[in-house]
Amino acid sequence: MDLIAGLKDIVGDTQVLTGDATAPYRDDWTKKFPSDPLCVVRPATTDEVSAIVKLAAETGTPVVPASGRTGLTGGAQANGQILLSVERMNKIREIRPDARTAIVEAGVILSNLHEACEAKNLVFPLTFGAKGSAMIGGVLSTNAGGSNVVRYGSTRGLCLGLEVVLADGRVMNLMSELHKDNSGYALKDLFIGAEGTLGIITAAVMKLSPKPAAYATAMVATPTLPDALKLLNRLQIATGGAVEAFEFMPRSYIEGHLARFPDQREPFDAPHDINLMVEVGALAPRDATPGDVGSVPIVDYLEEVLAEMMEDGAVLDAVVARNEAQRREMWQRREEAAQVTTGRLPLVNCDVALPLDKVHVFLERMEQVLAELDADAQWICVSHLGDGNVHYTAYPSKKDPALQDALVEKVEDVVLSLGGSFSAEHGIGQYKKPSMARRKNPVAIDVMRTIKAALDPQNLLNPGKVLPD
Amino acid sequence: MDLIAGLKDIVGDTQVLTGDATAPYRDDWTKKFPSDPLCVVRPATTDEVSAIVKLAAETGTPVVPASGRTGLTGGAQANGQILLSVERMNKIREIRPDARTAIVEAGVILSNLHEACEAKNLVFPLTFGAKGSAMIGGVLSTNAGGSNVVRYGSTRGLCLGLEVVLADGRVMNLMSELHKDNSGYALKDLFIGAEGTLGIITAAVMKLSPKPAAYATAMVATPTLPDALKLLNRLQIATGGAVEAFEFMPRSYIEGHLARFPDQREPFDAPHDINLMVEVGALAPRDATPGDVGSVPIVDYLEEVLAEMMEDGAVLDAVVARNEAQRREMWQRREEAAQVTTGRLPLVNCDVALPLDKVHVFLERMEQVLAELDADAQWICVSHLGDGNVHYTAYPSKKDPALQDALVEKVEDVVLSLGGSFSAEHGIGQYKKPSMARRKNPVAIDVMRTIKAALDPQNLLNPGKVLPD
Repeated sequence: MDLIAGLKDIVGDTQVLTGDATAPYRDDWTKKFPSDPLCVVRPATTDEVSAIVKLAAETGTPVVPASGRTGLTGGAQANGQILLSVERMNKIREIRPDARTAIVEAGVILSNLHEACEAKNLVFPLTFGAKGSAMIGGVLSTNAGGSNVVRYGSTRGLCLGLEVVLADGRVMNLMSELHKDNSGYALKDLFIGAEGTLGIITAAVMKLSPKPAAYATAMVATPTLPDALKLLNRLQIATGGAVEAFEFMPRSYIEGHLARFPDQREPFDAPHDINLMVEVGALAPRDATPGDVGSVPIVDYLEEVLAEMMEDGAVLDAVVARNEAQRREMWQRREEAAQVTTGRLPLVNCDVALPLDKVHVFLERMEQVLAELDADAQWICVSHLGDGNVHYTAYPSKKDPALQDALVEKVEDVVLSLGGSFSAEHGIGQYKKPSMARRKNPVAIDVMRTIKAALDPQNLLNPGKVLPD
Repeated sequence: MDLIAGLKDIVGDTQVLTGDATAPYRDDWTKKFPSDPLCVVRPATTDEVSAIVKLAAETGTPVVPASGRTGLTGGAQANGQILLSVERMNKIREIRPDARTAIVEAGVILSNLHEACEAKNLVFPLTFGAKGSAMIGGVLSTNAGGSNVVRYGSTRGLCLGLEVVLADGRVMNLMSELHKDNSGYALKDLFIGAEGTLGIITAAVMKLSPKPAAYATAMVATPTLPDALKLLNRLQIATGGAVEAFEFMPRSYIEGHLARFPDQREPFDAPHDINLMVEVGALAPRDATPGDVGSVPIVDYLEEVLAEMMEDGAVLDAVVARNEAQRREMWQRREEAAQVTTGRLPLVNCDVALPLDKVHVFLERMEQVLAELDADAQWICVSHLGDGNVHYTAYPSKKDPALQDALVEKVEDVVLSLGGSFSAEHGIGQYKKPSMARRKNPVAIDVMRTIKAALDPQNLLNPGKVLPD
């Protein structure tokens, strides 16, 4: 049976695209992993996904699931393969305020879920720059992180239940809404973060949180990163862990941001090396009353702490958001990171994790390492400092693949010598496969290969991703 | 080669027990799953565990890992198999206060870890009645829960890194201390809760939390369970989620407790149907100052809330602990649950999870179901109400296996009709295998079997546990 005809039988003629019609699906956000798919298929239901995967298995055709295509490691690149887009599976099936859960399909755009929760005075706390395009399927498949992990955890910790189509087309229903459910192996956790190589996620139950009654948001400059950690720990202990975001931007980032977005403003009157965006959430009724962010106690409290630390010399400057517009401006500066860091070429993009108190050591050592490798290279970083997650981008002075590879390896050397990981939140995809091969425990890689071979014996689900060749 | 001689070569003559010498290892806590092992082996290091498992693989001998043997589902029963006790791997290798991590071996007793953390003003928050015997290996292998899950999560969420010996004896090192680490499949999560069927956990990195500066602990009586949830939600919102424990004991539990421990006291002057043990933790310096639990603001705050709710009729009675001795008495009443509920036979013991707002519906329906099946049956329950986890124990009027099975099935029927799970925190072991076969998604069971066969092709690691036959 002709594959394309079979696919059209399943989803309808208009939902199978071939040739030039696939053009809108050929690029991802990075423009580094262009796709040339056999076809694009757009199912509307789990049953259709199941039928597509069954047909793919019968015909031995690889399937690459894709959602918002905002990943940074080439995990959704499809060449000569079926590109299965979940974009039409975009229903928020239910938001259950009492249970604090949302039942969503894989094609729901992250910011749409944010808005739907907001309307019920709840939050789905996961957020990052690409939220207007990223979809839940990709968010789950990469175990995405972002700026609120310090308070709420990564995607895996925010997912209670999952529905997955397996390599043979069967549907595995794990759509639990429970917080405790010890019924066999942790399959939900295994399929989250597997980047579509073990199964295709079609729906999920996500955990929601009460919406903080108010936010206190500030830009803060400190003399050193250890001083920044002092501020973080002080706020965490005093608020019982209510720090929602703790983001670090060095001067090079601020300059890069202003160069890319010239109508934006400096965060402070004078330039500083260490710029932090800090947000604390407050829950009613003890800490705050609902209403304007500028008039509630949590802001007063943050100002008090900052003023005290300024007297001690541990804070150099601070600007507290007085209204939602000022708060949005602070967030925007941080959320435009991808545009800031990927605006010039050649570049080497490293998403690494470190113990919190080793971030400054990493940056010091990289200064030296970079100078030794390429005296004219430059760098920018932006960091979820509250998690020890650093996005470090180096710009070599010339296009030289060997130099770029050497740079990546050097970054890994420094990270691993400090007890860190070569991959924090962007996943492996294709870009990080060499790092996986070099740095991950070889026994663990072998266990992953064994699981992949057992669950996808024909190697048809997103082949060539995650696992080293 | 003779197996016993080979084992003695690995661990030394005195650490391989056979015949009568295995007597101390034959019973577990429940006395329902007696072991008659081929031998007991007591390795002191990961290398020894590795060598034992290699030898077992070469000789085709099954290995059952055991630690504190306090599990309730027969997961550590060993008949004619090697019982591998991790009790000598009992070192707390390091507690790192700045990183808030503890690096521990599988044989560390839970309460020893509690004490070591306490000495550094930190807590490892997982706790339950068997804490004086249970060891980290078993805690991880069953993804144990307990009374503080409402605030801190189950074991899986408290583990950052893991070391596992695989079925062929290789050591998989995943001893990360990082909070973000997206480097391939979630193997750590898969091996946690696998009850030793996929590998033997030998060491782990556990996440610690700052020790609350003070606790406010109270026994509270409410007219209904929905009133109890009102109290829970009110405290959670006001304290930013600082409720450490929210335990429910019906009158039948209080009576059972007093019958078993006649020198203990009633919680209130008058008997109540709905008895709650509530604990809220406070972090310095906003909520409380360190020192005597009776003199700090968090206690005043709890008293205020209880007084207001009493005026509204949503609370009937309340006793707040004035000192550590009174607090310990409240905890003891709850932690003696296993002695209270398993003291008479025959019994049917169900560890189930429900949406929080369905717990009272479950109990109402069970009242009716139990009466229909066996008019003279009695029941006790005790519940981690903050997680919707109910330990429901029924006492049939006669020893009749068919009646007991029918009771278990009825409990499952009611639980599943309310969106719950047949297994919350005790795991599957052997006791819940029939429930797994009946109630778990069959595709999920098949995926588990596929993973088990791929990672343990000889079926030598704790065979016959977790997966239905």
